[in-house]
Amino acid sequence: MPAPLKIMADAIRVLSMDAVEKANSGHPGMPMGMADVATVLWSKFLKYDAADPAWPDRDRFVLSAGHGSMLLYSLLHLSGFKAMTMDQIKAFRQLGSATPGHPEYGHSPGVETTTGPLGQGLATSIGMAIAERHMAARFGADLVDHRTWVVAGDGCLMEGVSQEAIALAGRLKLSRLTVLWDDNRITIDGAVSLSDATDQLARFKAAGWAVKAIDGHDVGQIRRALAWATRQDKPTLIACRTQIGKGAATLEGHHDTHGKALGTQEIEATRAKLGWSHEPFVIPDEVYRPWRAAGRRGRKDRKAWEARLAASGQKADFERAVAGDLPAHAFEALDAFIAKAAAEKPAAATRQHSGAVLEQVFGQVREMVGGSADLTGSNNTYVKNTQVLDAPDYAGRYVNYGVREFGMAAAMNGMALHGGVIPYGGTFLVFSDYARPAIRLAALMGVRVIHVGTHDSIGLGEDGPTHQPVEHLASLRAMPNLNVFRPADAIETAECWKLALDAKTTPSIMALSRQKTPAVRGAPAGENLSARGAYQLAAAGHPAQVTIFATGTEVAIALAARDMLEADGVGARVISVPSFELFEQQPADYQAAVIGETAVRVAVEAGVKQGWERFIGEAGVFIGMSGFGASAPDKVLYPHFGITAEAVVSAVKAKL
Amino acid sequence: MPAPLKIMADAIRVLSMDAVEKANSGHPGMPMGMADVATVLWSKFLKYDAADPAWPDRDRFVLSAGHGSMLLYSLLHLSGFKAMTMDQIKAFRQLGSATPGHPEYGHSPGVETTTGPLGQGLATSIGMAIAERHMAARFGADLVDHRTWVVAGDGCLMEGVSQEAIALAGRLKLSRLTVLWDDNRITIDGAVSLSDATDQLARFKAAGWAVKAIDGHDVGQIRRALAWATRQDKPTLIACRTQIGKGAATLEGHHDTHGKALGTQEIEATRAKLGWSHEPFVIPDEVYRPWRAAGRRGRKDRKAWEARLAASGQKADFERAVAGDLPAHAFEALDAFIAKAAAEKPAAATRQHSGAVLEQVFGQVREMVGGSADLTGSNNTYVKNTQVLDAPDYAGRYVNYGVREFGMAAAMNGMALHGGVIPYGGTFLVFSDYARPAIRLAALMGVRVIHVGTHDSIGLGEDGPTHQPVEHLASLRAMPNLNVFRPADAIETAECWKLALDAKTTPSIMALSRQKTPAVRGAPAGENLSARGAYQLAAAGHPAQVTIFATGTEVAIALAARDMLEADGVGARVISVPSFELFEQQPADYQAAVIGETAVRVAVEAGVKQGWERFIGEAGVFIGMSGFGASAPDKVLYPHFGITAEAVVSAVKAKL
Repeated sequence: MPAPLKIMADAIRVLSMDAVEKANSGHPGMPMGMADVATVLWSKFLKYDAADPAWPDRDRFVLSAGHGSMLLYSLLHLSGFKAMTMDQIKAFRQLGSATPGHPEYGHSPGVETTTGPLGQGLATSIGMAIAERHMAARFGADLVDHRTWVVAGDGCLMEGVSQEAIALAGRLKLSRLTVLWDDNRITIDGAVSLSDATDQLARFKAAGWAVKAIDGHDVGQIRRALAWATRQDKPTLIACRTQIGKGAATLEGHHDTHGKALGTQEIEATRAKLGWSHEPFVIPDEVYRPWRAAGRRGRKDRKAWEARLAASGQKADFERAVAGDLPAHAFEALDAFIAKAAAEKPAAATRQHSGAVLEQVFGQVREMVGGSADLTGSNNTYVKNTQVLDAPDYAGRYVNYGVREFGMAAAMNGMALHGGVIPYGGTFLVFSDYARPAIRLAALMGVRVIHVGTHDSIGLGEDGPTHQPVEHLASLRAMPNLNVFRPADAIETAECWKLALDAKTTPSIMALSRQKTPAVRGAPAGENLSARGAYQLAAAGHPAQVTIFATGTEVAIALAARDMLEADGVGARVISVPSFELFEQQPADYQAAVIGETAVRVAVEAGVKQGWERFIGEAGVFIGMSGFGASAPDKVLYPHFGITAEAVVSAVKAKL
Repeated sequence: MPAPLKIMADAIRVLSMDAVEKANSGHPGMPMGMADVATVLWSKFLKYDAADPAWPDRDRFVLSAGHGSMLLYSLLHLSGFKAMTMDQIKAFRQLGSATPGHPEYGHSPGVETTTGPLGQGLATSIGMAIAERHMAARFGADLVDHRTWVVAGDGCLMEGVSQEAIALAGRLKLSRLTVLWDDNRITIDGAVSLSDATDQLARFKAAGWAVKAIDGHDVGQIRRALAWATRQDKPTLIACRTQIGKGAATLEGHHDTHGKALGTQEIEATRAKLGWSHEPFVIPDEVYRPWRAAGRRGRKDRKAWEARLAASGQKADFERAVAGDLPAHAFEALDAFIAKAAAEKPAAATRQHSGAVLEQVFGQVREMVGGSADLTGSNNTYVKNTQVLDAPDYAGRYVNYGVREFGMAAAMNGMALHGGVIPYGGTFLVFSDYARPAIRLAALMGVRVIHVGTHDSIGLGEDGPTHQPVEHLASLRAMPNLNVFRPADAIETAECWKLALDAKTTPSIMALSRQKTPAVRGAPAGENLSARGAYQLAAAGHPAQVTIFATGTEVAIALAARDMLEADGVGARVISVPSFELFEQQPADYQAAVIGETAVRVAVEAGVKQGWERFIGEAGVFIGMSGFGASAPDKVLYPHFGITAEAVVSAVKAKL
């Protein structure tokens, strides 16, 4: 290896092993193994300016093998990202540092996405590459013209989501995307061959990728391969044959370097072997110099780009899109829709209302890019006459994700992280389980993605229990920083969509019915009542003895039960609860007033009880599901499972 | 197509379109498209005897494309499975029928697994094929010598789990496994090419499969391909080029046949085109005759097999294994372990206790087959000196699943369904999200699989929030028919493992700590206290004013808080809650006694509050997490998030 590149790469190795040693926790093997590839990439190819980590036209670098976080932290520190000080490196894996165990979006500039859950960095990067092409089509190559580079390990490629991602990338011909596979033939349990015999090059090729294998420690091969990647008309895989823990005195190539500190003796011997005489966390100027030069390489490009932006007629639009701000009149048409719904009280499935809402807002909010995991007609996610996002021009705003819920959700995260796009995507609510790991990352990162989950209960009918969510509302509500919306009618659906679009740092999931349900709201109050999370939809006529809480299609059941109770002289209020999370954010006195103090409290939801105790207390009545559903028409299932107004009434009467 | 085969296949077509029409719901396209392939398979190759659907040495047929359920129901009816009467066919998709919308295990003999959630039938079949090879290695080819056949659609192959499955099958050289891919180039949204351009043959080949493409409507090609499959030394993919809705008068090849009734006009025209003059649900004798002969083809084989079993010295063992019964002395060594733990009170991580429990029970229960998704050392799932399950002899009892949590969970389902194997497998608890769709199917089907989820809280420390479960206990507890265990020490860990192994129709997940925790239980009561779900671990010294509920590593915190309160003269009981689910199954008076009536109730768990209201009521105190974790040593994180004995005490005092 040529001298400057060698010491640049060795600096990564030494920083990584020293930081892991100091923390007595972490993964030195991968950063040491991929140091050479990363050094060539960051010093010769990656378009970035360490002085402006947020430059919108920078290349995106994704460390999908997130356990190798010290590779990324070393690169950020060495190349001069201001926030990544040596003190932060020393605080590796300590509370509040910019250097958590796995890279976390938002903790440090230069960390483009949170990684660690394997396969997802790769799958997220597909979304970044889609967003890049889409933004390029919208704003032109003068403003958007960058690449996405991914470092992935064997674990990433074994995870199923990697297949969803590479198939989608291949289909969309995302030529700005390059995966650098750390082909070190080692996993935690030992040799990759213990559990895998896949010909990865052939596999990627089958998915429509251009592929190449190189020696990941040969600078010439690395350079040529990276240059080659930039010339392809499809996504590219470079299999970098490396030794895990490269440079380690005795453990080079050994899986013991993967996930723990090397130990003082090995570290001392490794220093000697590398000819690295400096103390831990001391980087000499002759190393900083070429690295800082690398970190400045993009400055000229950035300045030129800034000049182009300043001169562009699209400047305001571009900046607003990248900032994630909605346009001024985003909800004008939607507000008219709400007024109309208040007057006309349309009865329909809430998925249909959702489709109607999209018709009102999709044209106003140019950043919205929709899609579905092959359930477009069922999810009502497609807005008439929308062009499909596809090669070669990518200007379309609808993605055919295929039967890939997890890949879709991860790609949506990538789009949101890239900026300039507000992604939404649909599947059946029950299959949110498939996408759950990516929904969790969205919640953890705090990015605005909107999941459309239709067919939200046994009300979907004949498809049966495999397709009927029962525990999903509860399990999604359990997740921090995820807004779970279950609107009851057209107005609530519109309100919830507004809330989801306004939630810049919180992902949302909309639970929507397959089956028709009546309108429950009258004239709009001017206020977005759903923003309260829960609100009194119907007051008691007689003195209130009963409070009935419900969501979605069960709100109509609650109202029917109320009418029956009132007819019998029993005062009953109805509370619609479109979002548990937003209700928790209300002032305590509002919460107390909504919950009230009636003798009997009942909740109705075609799901499990878990979580409803918050509303109905220990002694409350729950009308819902206690097990899995069944295959039959919805009109049969609701009575079969005892979710009816009559059941509410008789349960209430038993308590009075 | 030769005459008898043609009318046999047409019978499937007509039954499928008629049943969907009657239900006005369902998927006729796939059964019509795959009728020819299925007819050849079921009449010439599949080893089965319709008179004995439970014959252990039958071939397994898995309809991974579960929406095409009428294909399977037609095959079962026509070939003479007694339970699949014509009345059941007429009751397609109606409540309580043997013919739900998607095939459901347990609803009808001949349905080997529940399918519908795409990709999972395929992934489950890998487990069946593993179990077959393993049982063959254990009992010999005289008793176990069958194949697994899978019908999969484009959706199955797009789902990421399919990659995990085919890579594992390829690595393990599961030559008794054949996938018949319904290559109809149609998905719900339209042409497959809208979202996919994968060369599936090349992809499977890259995973180590033998592959072949045929015309799925050409009997000669189908026969030759099926015969070819039985001769390969690796798993086989047969790409069957078909037309969806084959035979339909005007809609042949159109995606409109996929998911809805064809309509009376199209059906009438289709009858004419096929030359099928019979009324709906009327099958003439000339069709039943060859089909019933097909259903009897395996009878001689079965009788011969029964004779071999009767003569076998392994008969009792084989029958016990297949019945899923534990051997008589399964827990003898484990009971000694419990007695020892009661005396010695070992402090260790509960994952280590779990490893120690496995050492005691794995040798006694020969059916147990372990594994891990590449976290063997962390999950403590490997029992010393266990042979790895691998080609060519498959006698080993430990599977290197690779970084494939979902694939592992689905394969475990397949092993359990096959019978003769009790599978357990490990990953980090947080990555149960990756496996969640397969855990749900296990719960829905009621099969005994045991998930080992280590690193069960922020107590895992430095790996940070991507690896720290917070909402997982709640989200898993929300799922019906899943036992979630979170044991507190060695004795509870042993008790919970016993319960999991005894739960023949319920899957379990063990939440186990990474960090060390003290013993909390003294001399065993003789009773398995964990079987109660929750029990009083420590009584109050002073008159009880406080009840503290806790699980796992937080039980020690609860006990410490109790001691501090008692020292201040405040009587406090401690309730250990290893399983919410089992507690719910206790008599009401037991539940009431455990919950008690103290003035203050507190729960301590390093997870979200959701679900704990059941124990602490509306006014209760919860000491736990309300958001995601952080990267830092566990000794820092617990105080940081306020999960300490001191926090419990001060919260209690504020309430008293």
